[in-house]
Amino acid sequence: MRASVLKAPGEIRVEHRPVPRPGPHDVLVRIAAVGVCGSDTHYYEHGRIGDHVVEQPLVLGHEPSGVVVAVGPEVSDRHPGQRVSLEPGVPTAFSAQTLSGSYNLDPDVRFFATPPVDGVFSEYAVHPAAFAHPVPDSLSDDAAALLEPLSVAVSAVRAAAVTLGDRILVTGAGPVGLLIARCARLAGAVDVVVSDTRADRLAKARCYGATDTFTVADAPDVTGPFPGSGYTAMLDASGAEAAVLSGMQRLAPRARVVLVGMGSDTLRVPVPLLQERELLLTGIFRYANTWPTAVSLAASGAVDLDFLVTSHHTLDEVPAALTAGASEGALKAIVTP
Amino acid sequence: MRASVLKAPGEIRVEHRPVPRPGPHDVLVRIAAVGVCGSDTHYYEHGRIGDHVVEQPLVLGHEPSGVVVAVGPEVSDRHPGQRVSLEPGVPTAFSAQTLSGSYNLDPDVRFFATPPVDGVFSEYAVHPAAFAHPVPDSLSDDAAALLEPLSVAVSAVRAAAVTLGDRILVTGAGPVGLLIARCARLAGAVDVVVSDTRADRLAKARCYGATDTFTVADAPDVTGPFPGSGYTAMLDASGAEAAVLSGMQRLAPRARVVLVGMGSDTLRVPVPLLQERELLLTGIFRYANTWPTAVSLAASGAVDLDFLVTSHHTLDEVPAALTAGASEGALKAIVTP
Amino acid sequence: MRASVLKAPGEIRVEHRPVPRPGPHDVLVRIAAVGVCGSDTHYYEHGRIGDHVVEQPLVLGHEPSGVVVAVGPEVSDRHPGQRVSLEPGVPTAFSAQTLSGSYNLDPDVRFFATPPVDGVFSEYAVHPAAFAHPVPDSLSDDAAALLEPLSVAVSAVRAAAVTLGDRILVTGAGPVGLLIARCARLAGAVDVVVSDTRADRLAKARCYGATDTFTVADAPDVTGPFPGSGYTAMLDASGAEAAVLSGMQRLAPRARVVLVGMGSDTLRVPVPLLQERELLLTGIFRYANTWPTAVSLAASGAVDLDFLVTSHHTLDEVPAALTAGASEGALKAIVTP
Amino acid sequence: MRASVLKAPGEIRVEHRPVPRPGPHDVLVRIAAVGVCGSDTHYYEHGRIGDHVVEQPLVLGHEPSGVVVAVGPEVSDRHPGQRVSLEPGVPTAFSAQTLSGSYNLDPDVRFFATPPVDGVFSEYAVHPAAFAHPVPDSLSDDAAALLEPLSVAVSAVRAAAVTLGDRILVTGAGPVGLLIARCARLAGAVDVVVSDTRADRLAKARCYGATDTFTVADAPDVTGPFPGSGYTAMLDASGAEAAVLSGMQRLAPRARVVLVGMGSDTLRVPVPLLQERELLLTGIFRYANTWPTAVSLAASGAVDLDFLVTSHHTLDEVPAALTAGASEGALKAIVTP
Repeated sequence: MRASVLKAPGEIRVEHRPVPRPGPHDVLVRIAAVGVCGSDTHYYEHGRIGDHVVEQPLVLGHEPSGVVVAVGPEVSDRHPGQRVSLEPGVPTAFSAQTLSGSYNLDPDVRFFATPPVDGVFSEYAVHPAAFAHPVPDSLSDDAAALLEPLSVAVSAVRAAAVTLGDRILVTGAGPVGLLIARCARLAGAVDVVVSDTRADRLAKARCYGATDTFTVADAPDVTGPFPGSGYTAMLDASGAEAAVLSGMQRLAPRARVVLVGMGSDTLRVPVPLLQERELLLTGIFRYANTWPTAVSLAASGAVDLDFLVTSHHTLDEVPAALTAGASEGALKAIVTP
Repeated sequence: MRASVLKAPGEIRVEHRPVPRPGPHDVLVRIAAVGVCGSDTHYYEHGRIGDHVVEQPLVLGHEPSGVVVAVGPEVSDRHPGQRVSLEPGVPTAFSAQTLSGSYNLDPDVRFFATPPVDGVFSEYAVHPAAFAHPVPDSLSDDAAALLEPLSVAVSAVRAAAVTLGDRILVTGAGPVGLLIARCARLAGAVDVVVSDTRADRLAKARCYGATDTFTVADAPDVTGPFPGSGYTAMLDASGAEAAVLSGMQRLAPRARVVLVGMGSDTLRVPVPLLQERELLLTGIFRYANTWPTAVSLAASGAVDLDFLVTSHHTLDEVPAALTAGASEGALKAIVTP
Repeated sequence: MRASVLKAPGEIRVEHRPVPRPGPHDVLVRIAAVGVCGSDTHYYEHGRIGDHVVEQPLVLGHEPSGVVVAVGPEVSDRHPGQRVSLEPGVPTAFSAQTLSGSYNLDPDVRFFATPPVDGVFSEYAVHPAAFAHPVPDSLSDDAAALLEPLSVAVSAVRAAAVTLGDRILVTGAGPVGLLIARCARLAGAVDVVVSDTRADRLAKARCYGATDTFTVADAPDVTGPFPGSGYTAMLDASGAEAAVLSGMQRLAPRARVVLVGMGSDTLRVPVPLLQERELLLTGIFRYANTWPTAVSLAASGAVDLDFLVTSHHTLDEVPAALTAGASEGALKAIVTP
Repeated sequence: MRASVLKAPGEIRVEHRPVPRPGPHDVLVRIAAVGVCGSDTHYYEHGRIGDHVVEQPLVLGHEPSGVVVAVGPEVSDRHPGQRVSLEPGVPTAFSAQTLSGSYNLDPDVRFFATPPVDGVFSEYAVHPAAFAHPVPDSLSDDAAALLEPLSVAVSAVRAAAVTLGDRILVTGAGPVGLLIARCARLAGAVDVVVSDTRADRLAKARCYGATDTFTVADAPDVTGPFPGSGYTAMLDASGAEAAVLSGMQRLAPRARVVLVGMGSDTLRVPVPLLQERELLLTGIFRYANTWPTAVSLAASGAVDLDFLVTSHHTLDEVPAALTAGASEGALKAIVTP
């Protein structure tokens, strides 16, 4: 099979590799579509993300959909021909974190395209059947792939405990920020205000669930441009410390702050503010137990995932796919192996 | 002023009474619209509800909207001319229940039209300003009155902790059942299945948030007609034991059951089922801290309260208003003093 | 090896069976002590518990401790010579319930001594290493076995969300009721009132965490003998409907009721009481993620498990062990293979 | 009556003032004992705490106990001769925060010794009866006064959701840190590790609930001296950023961090750590609904408050009382008017 391999920072080649064989509990999937994520781009450009260093050739891509073409001997609830969305992280079966419902925090989780585990910019992949979630035919291949960023949004909205009547601030209007805004509305928020530095993204946000938007400078002033106040929760999808600090000034007592975006190494939390309003600050690491919800939100039409797709690329065009996100108007690139 | 007074079961007369005077923290409100509730009808027909007995002439009606016409000397945040929805229950200021956020459970709460406290089928009423919630002009008088049953629905949906991806069963499609279905959808439920014995109400439900409906016999069989399974929560607005028991058979592990409807004195809970699925069963008593959410849901257009109104009546027509609900097609009667 | 086998109701024989061989992720354990549970006795006397019917010879016993004597090739964190307590229920690895932290509710869980899965009244057993929890040498073999009923108590106290300042009612003072009382105290309850029909058990309760006790008739009157009121939670370890209904009358608003004991098929819940106090009623099914907590509670001396043991029996004396609990003064029998 | 009045930073005089008269819902209390808090000392030395500036003569002291000597005409549940502990903050009756159970966050709360509201270093004080909590005779006047810092600890332990089996790190071993350690143990923690820069305080901690202690430098290294790891919650009573950051490195996944101590203006939260472990960071502002729990903990003997008292002072000795805390061995000074 053909696979797009990162050989060194900035250097990607398509190579031939043997089609992998499914283990007893696995499925073999022919990959149909793979969403491109900022982390793929970061590995491509820098060869590392924090402590995760690419030390040997690596296949990128971790947001795949496809079709089951074979199943292992112990698999009874998946079958060839079934369309699936692959949840990219597979934990150890009976670790303490897995058994307690936080399998995303299992230290030995294996995750597509996190070194040294290969991703799915390739024609085929094997994966445990339990993490190959069936999707209805009403979902396109692209949408089935984008259940992964939708899972991030579902996880964020759960962490923020968004509910009926909430007033939400979302900082950052990339794909994840947009999905968070959409999910926050679906979870009962009456106001969902979205900020970003790019006006084109805010236009998308207004079509997608935001009740209001506004443009901020790259480093918004803490006392600056954020309108409104009394937000009951704030979700950051920008990774920008200035955005988070500005937003925190405008929160209601006991508001929740959820850090989703990566970027800042530190956040200088104003302690008296945190204490006097009893704010709750947390961050999320990927997701757990989100696919069933994500599938049903997308399948019911509540979340239109195709709306986010702005370009398609073949396996030979992966480098272009990895840099497409920076263009005006671009949101999500899809690789179709 | 004129007031409609229950003199004895089945006997109501319009009388003249002095316009009440607001205390220091009160507002005086000219009543514009009052929703009719099943409990009003029950007092009218039986003279009591459980331990609450009508022992002296009583003004019924507890779902009022109106206009502030005067304010007490200590009131600074309400003013004459302001349109308001009155929250009917007023607790003791610093009781243990009030201070801990459950003011609805304060044993000394005074509630409109609960003996011996008069209700609001009258031209004027006084009420503490804090419980006279301002409403925007986009809300009709009827809608402002119906924030009360909407508050019941908000409280029920909170107790059921409805969130993204839930699959909900609502038993009973009267006004409260319909509002629960609507709020469950707004809170993120992807499936909201509604049952009732009346087909006309189920037709309304399908316009109002239900994703599916079905008709049940008066006493549905436990193994009987309820379709589907794996509901993550069930909210009963029927008060019918058979409906609750039938629904409970179809719940997912750790599902929540919220009893909203009144009617059954006892519910014969199947203990092994409760234990083996670790179901959570609770009931709600009115509501607390719901008006701000209810106002924003109605004002944003997320909940169309006027949709529920099926008849209007003057003060002189209160007896007709109290019996209007039983008619085919009827949902909510409004008295306009 | 020798194993005690239930051949038919009331008929148990010791037989010779081959020592089982551990699979790749398993340990082989030489059994040191096994607690006797009421469910073992019930299978012995009736050949069934509800839908679980003994249709072929069955080894009883599900509360074992022992010593690892061999490990499978994939096991790296257990070693021969290690003393362990075996958690008896093993779920499917990646089922929905397992991944969401409720592995006890996995429908395919395999549990010692639940037909057709053999239990551990035998000299050896194999078990997945992840469910063979190491115990420190400060814990006796008996105590290591009784981490199982302690796990039930931990699960019950979690379900009741017992915390600082709670006032708790525990109905039933068998081994599980006593452990619940003890754990409720450790979790911060200031009052722990225990009821039972047997005075000898209440004497034990007063040594074990109860701040007050009282004797009830077999069918306590609802308005009857329970002292006090305003309990913030109630945990039933009696399985007696009358005890639960009597206790429910004495609960504070928003109190939690946790049904732990088995016995009643139905509980006639008073709906107005449930609603007017917004009580929360639930049941537990075994436990999940309790062993680490149970080990630390026992190892720290906070819970004295040896205190519960009232008799020891060899494999040949299993019938006597199974009927020992009914005697005056008896609490927990231990089988030592 | 005599009152100790702060005239300017560092300048305190005893003055004569009229005995205040209780309003309709108030009690008049003869003050028996008042605990000295670090905030009193800070106002004395600096004339301000953050935005709270002493602009007119101010009576300090906000941890009082005493005896009711008169009650207002509307008070029926307090009577002269009753011993009480005064909860120092009184919120607006029907504000949004008060009605939702967070009355400590009501922006108009009036709090003893927070400018311009006088405190209780005086012979008498009036206070709403609902905030004058009766105490049993088994509690000393000192202990009744110290229900205030115990309330801080109860609030902190609630915010950290301490429960059975938790492993807790407490940074800072002043009176509040000690009480937190004690309450964490009472709430079920099996390990409670306490750090401080002062060895004398750690000796007290070991008598008071800590299972382990260790001395840190004034600015502990992040990778430095804190022993152990896998803490399930951390409560800071030091207000020292270095202590918090050091402790955060040693937390288990999903651990809670509660900032209680004041001191740092900012905390440079390591965002990747917060996200990868999904830590939960919050702060508390005083307390709400804690007195009933605090009274029962102290009255039951579970918390020995007299243990904390290291000196007593008359009204004339308030300056000495305010500076007593810095001495070797000192913990809590008490003023006895």
